[in-house]
Amino acid sequence: MVDRWYNIAADLPGVLAPPKDPDEGESRIALLTRILPSALIDQEFTAERWVPIPEEVRGVYRRVGRPTPLLRAEGFERALGTKVHIYYKYEGVLPVGSHKLNTAVAQAYYAKADGAVEVATETGAGQWGMAVSLAAALFGLKATVFMTRSSYNSKRQRLVFMRAYGATVYPSPSEVTETGRRHFRPDHPGSLGIAISEAVEYVLSGERRRYLPGSVLEFVLLHQTVIGLEAMGQLPEEPDYAVACVGGGSNFGGFTYPMLGAKLRGEGFGKTKFLAVESAAAPKLTRGEYRYDFPDATGILPLIKMYTLGHDYVPPPVHAAGLRYHGAAPSLSLLKRLGHVEAVAYGQEEVMEAALLFARSEGFLPAPESAHAVKAVADLARKLPPGSVVVFNMSGHGLLDVDSYEKALSWDKLYKQG
Amino acid sequence: MVDRWYNIAADLPGVLAPPKDPDEGESRIALLTRILPSALIDQEFTAERWVPIPEEVRGVYRRVGRPTPLLRAEGFERALGTKVHIYYKYEGVLPVGSHKLNTAVAQAYYAKADGAVEVATETGAGQWGMAVSLAAALFGLKATVFMTRSSYNSKRQRLVFMRAYGATVYPSPSEVTETGRRHFRPDHPGSLGIAISEAVEYVLSGERRRYLPGSVLEFVLLHQTVIGLEAMGQLPEEPDYAVACVGGGSNFGGFTYPMLGAKLRGEGFGKTKFLAVESAAAPKLTRGEYRYDFPDATGILPLIKMYTLGHDYVPPPVHAAGLRYHGAAPSLSLLKRLGHVEAVAYGQEEVMEAALLFARSEGFLPAPESAHAVKAVADLARKLPPGSVVVFNMSGHGLLDVDSYEKALSWDKLYKQG
Repeated sequence: MVDRWYNIAADLPGVLAPPKDPDEGESRIALLTRILPSALIDQEFTAERWVPIPEEVRGVYRRVGRPTPLLRAEGFERALGTKVHIYYKYEGVLPVGSHKLNTAVAQAYYAKADGAVEVATETGAGQWGMAVSLAAALFGLKATVFMTRSSYNSKRQRLVFMRAYGATVYPSPSEVTETGRRHFRPDHPGSLGIAISEAVEYVLSGERRRYLPGSVLEFVLLHQTVIGLEAMGQLPEEPDYAVACVGGGSNFGGFTYPMLGAKLRGEGFGKTKFLAVESAAAPKLTRGEYRYDFPDATGILPLIKMYTLGHDYVPPPVHAAGLRYHGAAPSLSLLKRLGHVEAVAYGQEEVMEAALLFARSEGFLPAPESAHAVKAVADLARKLPPGSVVVFNMSGHGLLDVDSYEKALSWDKLYKQG
Repeated sequence: MVDRWYNIAADLPGVLAPPKDPDEGESRIALLTRILPSALIDQEFTAERWVPIPEEVRGVYRRVGRPTPLLRAEGFERALGTKVHIYYKYEGVLPVGSHKLNTAVAQAYYAKADGAVEVATETGAGQWGMAVSLAAALFGLKATVFMTRSSYNSKRQRLVFMRAYGATVYPSPSEVTETGRRHFRPDHPGSLGIAISEAVEYVLSGERRRYLPGSVLEFVLLHQTVIGLEAMGQLPEEPDYAVACVGGGSNFGGFTYPMLGAKLRGEGFGKTKFLAVESAAAPKLTRGEYRYDFPDATGILPLIKMYTLGHDYVPPPVHAAGLRYHGAAPSLSLLKRLGHVEAVAYGQEEVMEAALLFARSEGFLPAPESAHAVKAVADLARKLPPGSVVVFNMSGHGLLDVDSYEKALSWDKLYKQG
């Protein structure tokens, strides 16, 4: 059982540009210190290579099924007709069905340590909202979740889960905040930008509340390194490629940074390449600009230097809602900039077809987000020499995404002919 | 990794009454030999204590996440306010979300070894159908599933999964078999009895087809002992109680028999008691008769000696569809008869409330079936002395059963007040 997280800031080959305030308006950096648990502010800026995982957090990690398995996908190899060895880390065993819980548990713990009694956040498809709702329940905190109204109406199961865990869930725009009331109409589909603003306003308007972010910030990636650290201890052979999908970067960073850091320090993984897989609907790493931009659509958080499509970019509505994000975490953006990380983007249909081939040959249906990594692995497996080794992170399962597969694929692609 | 299954027939303290034919009509025992993979007939009647798990089956067990975790439910202990130690084996990590896959994989393997190209079965809520569909896909077999029409219309996600795995699924009664056509009307809800008859008829009407049963038969329990054998190696302390729910008995037998067998042989687990938890909707162990009866509603299979509510008993429509069965496997019935197994029955609402308390304190939402074991454990934990140890089998998760929880519970019970 891993007892510390890995912080890649200690090993970066260049300087990580710090967050900064825009030229006008109130200080966003000062705002951060008012809404985030204080330990997370420290973690955001620390250069320490290793950060101890508090015993209470490790206890929860154990109870929710950590360490998660690392499996060999021999059936998928056969289905692809490849001699490449394919391994995957499987985060779908966690009760919320995705890696999001790893950081939600840590953040809820630090919020409680600050004396908070309530945490608040935004959620799109509901994965992050489920993770925060459960983490809050496990630490005896109240949770309030602003869920984009279109998801609130369509992702009923995750909504039920959040409430069953004890969370209060508002469709966003809501009538609970100023921001919400400004945008409110019963048929407004909502956006993550509005929902973030609502959650932050909600935190600022009450006592002993903290805001919990689901990705992009460096401490989120830090907490997720439990995935990669476990994987390093489980892998029977050194990979030629380590692959993960990218929304804001927490799944990718959490899985690859421990290996990538070892490579940067010259302590192994010398031959390993790192491949970030994004959605063609939000291709920041392959088609974005490297510059300062807001991480949120409405510009209430500090500017960070990253690959971005612009904070007002609205990705087309793909089923991999977790990848519909305009930017990538600063450390990931820097590593891409410096050539230590490769990137590729795929379209929705090819990705979901690859995921179905995986499900038929291994059993697990990948979440639409994780399906992007599966597609990239399938392409690598077809072109790498026999005996090559590829490992990827299956960040979540698709058990609550069956409707998405039904909607995205035609009958003949969804249902294999016997 | 376990390399053999445990057969309790070798250690039973009494004689297991063999299956027999009814006084009239064609031989049902002869029928079994025509529809089942031949190795399974052997396994049904063997007295060997240990049956080797074929390497191909073990390979699939590894790929789908075996060994599954054994976890300590410390959060649930705190929520109950008990000093009893509660452990649980968690079968929900398997890709179909329940233990059903353990035997489906073995049965598909033996069907293929017989030269079969296709397997067929019936399914109610869809767990067994999903398991057979995946197992068939993994061994390159065609699968045909007869799904009760009411479930076909209401359990859409499991239907999509079965088809995505490559199975052909007919709503039953169907127009594909004589039996189906006899009962067919578009609004007929179907029954497991009719669906079994359809699957058997379908197998008999074609070449190189085999029928795969989901529970009750002794070889099904045998395959499921992989659960209990793993648990014995994972448990840090000997339990006072081992608990599992009972539909036909495969989850209960699979989990408890390895421990119970050791107890019968005087090789440990001397203090362990074994508690079978059934649904008040189908209380065969607590209120049934011990006698010969048909395992299927229409009487096409051989008579077996068991606790039964009568093969024509129609349980009320509870959400734990997997427990809506009129009888219990012969070995389990005998062990109950001889006092080696205790039994208790619970109603649906109290069970689902206990499951929600579990989800709020551990994260995992139990399947409605497994929720019965959770309720029994909660009651044990409240009455046993501090330091007692209880272990149960969480046979599956409830991620695809969210609708059932919504329908079964009122808002205030489903959603904890903050």
